[in-house]
Amino acid sequence: MAYAPSAPELPESFGQQLDEEARYTYAYPYGQPTNQLGSSGMFSPETHPDIVRSFESAGGNRSGFLDESELRHALSFSGYEGISNRTIRFLLFIYKSPAESLLRLGPKEYAELWNCLAQWRAMFDRYDSDRSGKMNALELRDAFYHLGYMLPSSVLQLIILSQLDDGTGNTVDLCFDRFLECGMIVKSLTEKFKEKDPGYTGYATLSYDAFMSMVIPFIASYD
Amino acid sequence: MAYAPSAPELPESFGQQLDEEARYTYAYPYGQPTNQLGSSGMFSPETHPDIVRSFESAGGNRSGFLDESELRHALSFSGYEGISNRTIRFLLFIYKSPAESLLRLGPKEYAELWNCLAQWRAMFDRYDSDRSGKMNALELRDAFYHLGYMLPSSVLQLIILSQLDDGTGNTVDLCFDRFLECGMIVKSLTEKFKEKDPGYTGYATLSYDAFMSMVIPFIASYD
Repeated sequence: MAYAPSAPELPESFGQQLDEEARYTYAYPYGQPTNQLGSSGMFSPETHPDIVRSFESAGGNRSGFLDESELRHALSFSGYEGISNRTIRFLLFIYKSPAESLLRLGPKEYAELWNCLAQWRAMFDRYDSDRSGKMNALELRDAFYHLGYMLPSSVLQLIILSQLDDGTGNTVDLCFDRFLECGMIVKSLTEKFKEKDPGYTGYATLSYDAFMSMVIPFIASYD
Repeated sequence: MAYAPSAPELPESFGQQLDEEARYTYAYPYGQPTNQLGSSGMFSPETHPDIVRSFESAGGNRSGFLDESELRHALSFSGYEGISNRTIRFLLFIYKSPAESLLRLGPKEYAELWNCLAQWRAMFDRYDSDRSGKMNALELRDAFYHLGYMLPSSVLQLIILSQLDDGTGNTVDLCFDRFLECGMIVKSLTEKFKEKDPGYTGYATLSYDAFMSMVIPFIASYD
């Protein structure tokens, strides 16, 4: 198949009218709520020991929370090194409890993030088909597709231009860090939209306030 | 007035039901379309000479366009030094011609950007009331308010948490660079929303595709 990085072809199904359920269906690994937290704000007994160890190694057992630098430490302990400040900040925004005004994670949120990262990592390894440690635009397209994100080609091209273009029209490959960020953006925005479209019509009516509130947490945070 | 940086009070008018026109009214300095480009893709005679000089100094007269590094050069030439790569990239996204697939600006787009930057700079100086060279959350609120952006307090707080929080719950001040980015995000998202709400009802119905396409260019671009 001819493939131009700046304008990838998409499977024919991308352009078809999808059935309503499939329009934003996403399969594994998302959305299964974990329940690894006991009522006391501690980890439940069935939590993977690596999760507890990394949380405690970063000092989370003292305050009960991980802040930005502690989260970086905990993720390094778990083998996720070199994650950019921006991505760390972004993960805090996505995973912190909605009731929490500070950017920090408790045990429950950290366990959810940890499990999710492991799944994204497995996904990255699966679709990094040439084992380069980098994902190119074609592999990214395949990963989204097999995750069930029916991104129209216009949206995929925007992602490629915003995330993979080096500023001179050349497309660069994504490391795990950026793959994670791309994937989380698509996943999180899709979930936010779905909340406003409970009937799965593919359309949502948003107030200006709701629109701004949905979008701003994803945008250009302090780093 | 008591002022807590993490939860700024807002003028009473923020919470009131605004008349429809005022809901997103923004006053100067936006929206006046400039027409400084002749039909040949060159600057029109009435273009400020500094605009032409900075465009040419960066090599724009050779190719007819400024790419990312050339734009940085041109802006430094114009006194806008120290603008982050991320902001440069963001400006390219916002100002490039929609018909242009590469991230680059022609004379018309560059003149629009240049004029807009001059207005943001004046705005920054006006609301940096303590002449600190930094804008705090209170000054940012005032600047948005006087620009006519009727941001609800929940949205303003999200902006402060995402843009001004240092990761430990402390609010830091914004330099011009970050002020520009904050302001452009609010301005651009508001304009995108307005396009979908021509009747100024305060509500817009968006398809999933349109929503994603509106938002992704503003998010976490390559840097």
